[in-house]
Amino acid sequence: MVDENRIPRNSMDDHSNEMAQKRREFLTEKTGSPLKYTGDYTIDPAVLPGNVENFIGIVQMPVGVAGPVQINGEHANGLFYVPLATTEGTLVASYSRGMRVINECGGVKTTVVEGFMQRAPAFIFEDARQAREFGQWVDDNLDKIRAAAESTTSIGKLTHIHQWSVSKTRYLRFNYTTGDAAGQNMVGKATLAACEWIKANYPSACEYLLSGNMDTDKKHSHLNMLHSRGKRVIAEIVLKKDVLAKIMKVDTKLLARATVLANTGALMAGAAYNGPHSANGIASLFIATGQDEANVVESHAGLLSHELLPNGDFYLSVTLPSLIVATYGGGTGLPTQKECLEMLGCYGKGKANKFAEIVAATVLAGDISLACAVIAGHWVSSHDKMGRNRP
Amino acid sequence: MVDENRIPRNSMDDHSNEMAQKRREFLTEKTGSPLKYTGDYTIDPAVLPGNVENFIGIVQMPVGVAGPVQINGEHANGLFYVPLATTEGTLVASYSRGMRVINECGGVKTTVVEGFMQRAPAFIFEDARQAREFGQWVDDNLDKIRAAAESTTSIGKLTHIHQWSVSKTRYLRFNYTTGDAAGQNMVGKATLAACEWIKANYPSACEYLLSGNMDTDKKHSHLNMLHSRGKRVIAEIVLKKDVLAKIMKVDTKLLARATVLANTGALMAGAAYNGPHSANGIASLFIATGQDEANVVESHAGLLSHELLPNGDFYLSVTLPSLIVATYGGGTGLPTQKECLEMLGCYGKGKANKFAEIVAATVLAGDISLACAVIAGHWVSSHDKMGRNRP
Amino acid sequence: MVDENRIPRNSMDDHSNEMAQKRREFLTEKTGSPLKYTGDYTIDPAVLPGNVENFIGIVQMPVGVAGPVQINGEHANGLFYVPLATTEGTLVASYSRGMRVINECGGVKTTVVEGFMQRAPAFIFEDARQAREFGQWVDDNLDKIRAAAESTTSIGKLTHIHQWSVSKTRYLRFNYTTGDAAGQNMVGKATLAACEWIKANYPSACEYLLSGNMDTDKKHSHLNMLHSRGKRVIAEIVLKKDVLAKIMKVDTKLLARATVLANTGALMAGAAYNGPHSANGIASLFIATGQDEANVVESHAGLLSHELLPNGDFYLSVTLPSLIVATYGGGTGLPTQKECLEMLGCYGKGKANKFAEIVAATVLAGDISLACAVIAGHWVSSHDKMGRNRP
Amino acid sequence: MVDENRIPRNSMDDHSNEMAQKRREFLTEKTGSPLKYTGDYTIDPAVLPGNVENFIGIVQMPVGVAGPVQINGEHANGLFYVPLATTEGTLVASYSRGMRVINECGGVKTTVVEGFMQRAPAFIFEDARQAREFGQWVDDNLDKIRAAAESTTSIGKLTHIHQWSVSKTRYLRFNYTTGDAAGQNMVGKATLAACEWIKANYPSACEYLLSGNMDTDKKHSHLNMLHSRGKRVIAEIVLKKDVLAKIMKVDTKLLARATVLANTGALMAGAAYNGPHSANGIASLFIATGQDEANVVESHAGLLSHELLPNGDFYLSVTLPSLIVATYGGGTGLPTQKECLEMLGCYGKGKANKFAEIVAATVLAGDISLACAVIAGHWVSSHDKMGRNRP
Repeated sequence: MVDENRIPRNSMDDHSNEMAQKRREFLTEKTGSPLKYTGDYTIDPAVLPGNVENFIGIVQMPVGVAGPVQINGEHANGLFYVPLATTEGTLVASYSRGMRVINECGGVKTTVVEGFMQRAPAFIFEDARQAREFGQWVDDNLDKIRAAAESTTSIGKLTHIHQWSVSKTRYLRFNYTTGDAAGQNMVGKATLAACEWIKANYPSACEYLLSGNMDTDKKHSHLNMLHSRGKRVIAEIVLKKDVLAKIMKVDTKLLARATVLANTGALMAGAAYNGPHSANGIASLFIATGQDEANVVESHAGLLSHELLPNGDFYLSVTLPSLIVATYGGGTGLPTQKECLEMLGCYGKGKANKFAEIVAATVLAGDISLACAVIAGHWVSSHDKMGRNRP
Repeated sequence: MVDENRIPRNSMDDHSNEMAQKRREFLTEKTGSPLKYTGDYTIDPAVLPGNVENFIGIVQMPVGVAGPVQINGEHANGLFYVPLATTEGTLVASYSRGMRVINECGGVKTTVVEGFMQRAPAFIFEDARQAREFGQWVDDNLDKIRAAAESTTSIGKLTHIHQWSVSKTRYLRFNYTTGDAAGQNMVGKATLAACEWIKANYPSACEYLLSGNMDTDKKHSHLNMLHSRGKRVIAEIVLKKDVLAKIMKVDTKLLARATVLANTGALMAGAAYNGPHSANGIASLFIATGQDEANVVESHAGLLSHELLPNGDFYLSVTLPSLIVATYGGGTGLPTQKECLEMLGCYGKGKANKFAEIVAATVLAGDISLACAVIAGHWVSSHDKMGRNRP
Repeated sequence: MVDENRIPRNSMDDHSNEMAQKRREFLTEKTGSPLKYTGDYTIDPAVLPGNVENFIGIVQMPVGVAGPVQINGEHANGLFYVPLATTEGTLVASYSRGMRVINECGGVKTTVVEGFMQRAPAFIFEDARQAREFGQWVDDNLDKIRAAAESTTSIGKLTHIHQWSVSKTRYLRFNYTTGDAAGQNMVGKATLAACEWIKANYPSACEYLLSGNMDTDKKHSHLNMLHSRGKRVIAEIVLKKDVLAKIMKVDTKLLARATVLANTGALMAGAAYNGPHSANGIASLFIATGQDEANVVESHAGLLSHELLPNGDFYLSVTLPSLIVATYGGGTGLPTQKECLEMLGCYGKGKANKFAEIVAATVLAGDISLACAVIAGHWVSSHDKMGRNRP
Repeated sequence: MVDENRIPRNSMDDHSNEMAQKRREFLTEKTGSPLKYTGDYTIDPAVLPGNVENFIGIVQMPVGVAGPVQINGEHANGLFYVPLATTEGTLVASYSRGMRVINECGGVKTTVVEGFMQRAPAFIFEDARQAREFGQWVDDNLDKIRAAAESTTSIGKLTHIHQWSVSKTRYLRFNYTTGDAAGQNMVGKATLAACEWIKANYPSACEYLLSGNMDTDKKHSHLNMLHSRGKRVIAEIVLKKDVLAKIMKVDTKLLARATVLANTGALMAGAAYNGPHSANGIASLFIATGQDEANVVESHAGLLSHELLPNGDFYLSVTLPSLIVATYGGGTGLPTQKECLEMLGCYGKGKANKFAEIVAATVLAGDISLACAVIAGHWVSSHDKMGRNRP
């Protein structure tokens, strides 16, 4: 590439206002486009190493606040105001409406069941028998492998290793608890150390690939539905028949029928989630709070469960098996993102389960709202009124 | 709910700096957290109706620029500098490295194959025969149904309707072309009009639910892998053996073996994508350019294909079957987002295919980089150096 | 291989009692095992060319008869006695019990929605654009392609071709109606002729593989759930609350709850069928009636749907999207198999839809029986009593 | 139902030639169809209790013999002649041809990796927290639960319990080793005993459903791909370039390309198996040897893996994760089925792993043959010649 096309960098101090400006000017010259608003930020670029390279400025994503929502969790308890970063009109209003229903029904109960983060190397052998024997050796040497892995981290704990033999390959999936960090990088380092220890100590030769795609990092998978990547968290509520009729104009019997229809559609479609729209709330809350923005793909998977109760009330719950969240590290410490986490009382250590409960409660609120809106026939019209810019 | 917990609203003019400030103060009072940086924005809230409700300010998400990348597309042609909004260290650097490889190999060829947007109502009958007969009637009256649907939009065109019978329900999936808009709202309105026309004109009684979850909106599904929701776009390259060896320190034969291993892992895991990490590039580019932030879940699905060529070079392509993009409407017109789109020459009408090509090229760059990094054993260490904040 | 290990063959007349005996003697000599019962058959091996090679005798699979079952279909109407070939104790008794429930509730309503058989070649090009252009050409030349395909068969009709672009490959899926034959071979020949015509007439060079695994022949696939391979057939019933209580000792409310639990399990497991055991009835009926014994894998996929009605009755239906059946050709004409088909009034032309309805009704009977047995806690004990040989 | 339509039964001694004849006469009277060949059996119906009810006779399914095939397994070692019950012309010939290739390449290496059988009850609680606590209690009381389960069987051993929380339900999946039996009934009984023990001993109230569909019995599931139901068995071979060219007229480079295309097709289709046709060999071998005929649906899932070696040879392997086999009990002891098992040296205890290896070797042979036939363009024509009866 000719030099003149290279993005300007400063090997000594690249995260500065000067370099950001220099790059914006370079881009404007190259593309003819101004980057005025992008350059109008108030964060200090000195905090950005570790978050971004070739920094040029910011995207100003609008944040609306939904709620409050009454959460009766083990970690989150009380009324919460939920910041949602979005450009999709009606989204905040819709989640707020669902939260109003929740409040009138006494709040949402939230439960974190478990939580893991994974790295999944593949070990390659000459034949299937060698791969099988290796698997046995791994089981037999789990304590030493754990020691090697945990030598790289004071937080991560190797809980168990799943194994699969395919052809002459042994796929391992290292499962760790990672405290209040999402932990992808932590477990990557730990697993690399474990793999190097294995390679050095396994009696025969072995080669490995640090990821054989069984992690499955940054993608939805059926495996993640079964074996949680992130938190497995559940939000439950009993929707009162009268409240739904009053606020949402929906009868619970009709809601039950519609839910069954939607379940069947999801099953036939092979969908990652059988409810209306887990991804909306998760994406908006993730962006507002500095979560890894790509993890919405793993996190949006889930199961919406329902039961029409004898008295006409409607039990509804959402199970998110792979919700990946963090309350420190990554983007959580950036100025606006930290503010949004603090607003939820979720910044820093010891807060990840609390935050996970809030996310699940938010998803449930959004599904109550959209499910009812589809039934009541209001969905299109509400989009039309509030989201007038949206084609 | 007691009044004092209600988020302040102004029914006359809610999208103003004053209301945003009032809400921030309310939240600070309620939660004890300041919202200083969140309130430090330069966009004019008067542009926000249609994008967000209960506006309180912005999240300042840092943007780095990757590239340039040489794209030899039908719509995107030339060198592109790609804005990526992210808080994940090493991401921009990694995509840039992949782009450098692409450039040294002569650029990436991109092709948009097709594009649709869907709304999928479910019609319910008394038995399976009535549902089947209804399906026949829909086929027979397609022109009239199309007229009803298209009466609501000057842009959307109803191309075809997929149908499925399950039990006594007939699931329809209306497929539209939607110009340069993502079009979810457009097709929602059009399909509602079509359904109402059907209800009024079908000789027998019928009831319907506007979405039976076969859309499948805001969630990954196997159906979307088969029948594109958004653009189906392909990016291809022949990676030269020498370039890979020089820049990435990776031999193409090893890359071929690793790709097969990762394919098998993805197949066994039931993953939505068989390459390393489509979601990273898509999420970051989507946020920077004002795409619907939740659509990364549909868009990240795909197929990575490879072929080791006789001369040792390596053909690699990514097929994204359901990439949902827009170049006007929604968040694309917000100040910073518009700047990022303009930097790519992608703002406004007639640009959606161009933008889709750029997204696919970016995904391919990221996968080249990460696949090679895993093989070369640099992956963990590069994260460690650049992403030091990340746990 | 040394000659002495070769299975004896007679190139002039291999399907004779003499050759079968010669081979049995050879095998006994080689393995030390007698093949007495295997050689004790009454079918004339002269009918076997086209069904088997290296014929050595028969397997004597016991057949039990279930029913009768009252079917109120469009093709099957009346009381049917269903032959089930099985070695699994309790299977026939269980299906019979379900049929008794059906009869007491007035019979099962059956509906064939559609039916297709496929062959899915893959055409390979130099890049994705060539593949896309080829796809357009196929659409434009559909009539000529159809003529080429149908030139090989008087029965098969090419209805439509599905297309998918992945990388530089264009996957086509030719869909045919095939009368009362399953038609795999018929559509294979027709598609080969079509492909050869395409190859000869496409303006540019193209190569193809006759099957790119999108058929998907002899394997379950999500694609088959969506786009029927074989018949799409539905069986429905309203189970009366009182009948279930009397015969199965099960309350319909409990049945509704259990069905929801089982649905969720199936969704989480990624199961091909969400009911109890479609495969049992299908496999046994297929073997008894000379269907292709491997097609149970495609045929067992399905969706069990339910609705608890206001009066306490229970609507239940099974949708089998890819039931592959034939009433002539293949094994249907073999002596015992033909007898079993004739017992159902299903041998010969014009009977495939009737037979499909009987299969669906049988599956529904089995699911009623097993679902109730699991709930009533009788399942294990009934196996224990009747299936005492089974470990 | 009117009495005259009832199938005749004899409560004292129903498995007799007399009763079978009586039922055949009844059916002939009712349906007008003779059951001459069906009644022409030589097995003694006195052996049938535990295998079938309402016995009327047999289906005479033709058996051909394929092979021999050289297997270099840990349990199966030597030349094997494989009995295949089929009505599909060319099937035996095709498997035989693949076996010839295998022999010329030195034989197939087979490896059993592991084996389990499952029953998966669902325990229902009032909320998600109770379900989670119950899961912890199960872990804490595993030894006692095991004791309760194993009290019902001298063979079955409870190895581990997988657990999943969804909503307020805890799904358990009991995994057992079951010796040489398939073991569905064995683990059903054991799990019932365990559940009853749990119900009696759990400090709080709990109710359960013996199967929550996570088993997943008699259906394919992604879960079974990951966590073996039955044996996980692998068959491997290095196909010599020259042998393939000579026997199959196929070049290994072309085979590699075709395999990649077929893999992609399978991935896009969401197929249970990515090779050509595992189900054919499995179904035919299962029927010949008295396996549970419905288990082909679980057993046909798998992964075909390949690698083009530097010298032009072609490594190919098939991994069958959920192959359900038995060498005693069920239908294995019936006269013809037992003969077929004995021909393989696989009847009785201690033979299940040997038999599993033979099945995997057979599947590999069939895939070699069909994959090459598709490439060489012989597939349709070979069907045409040998399978002339098949439409």
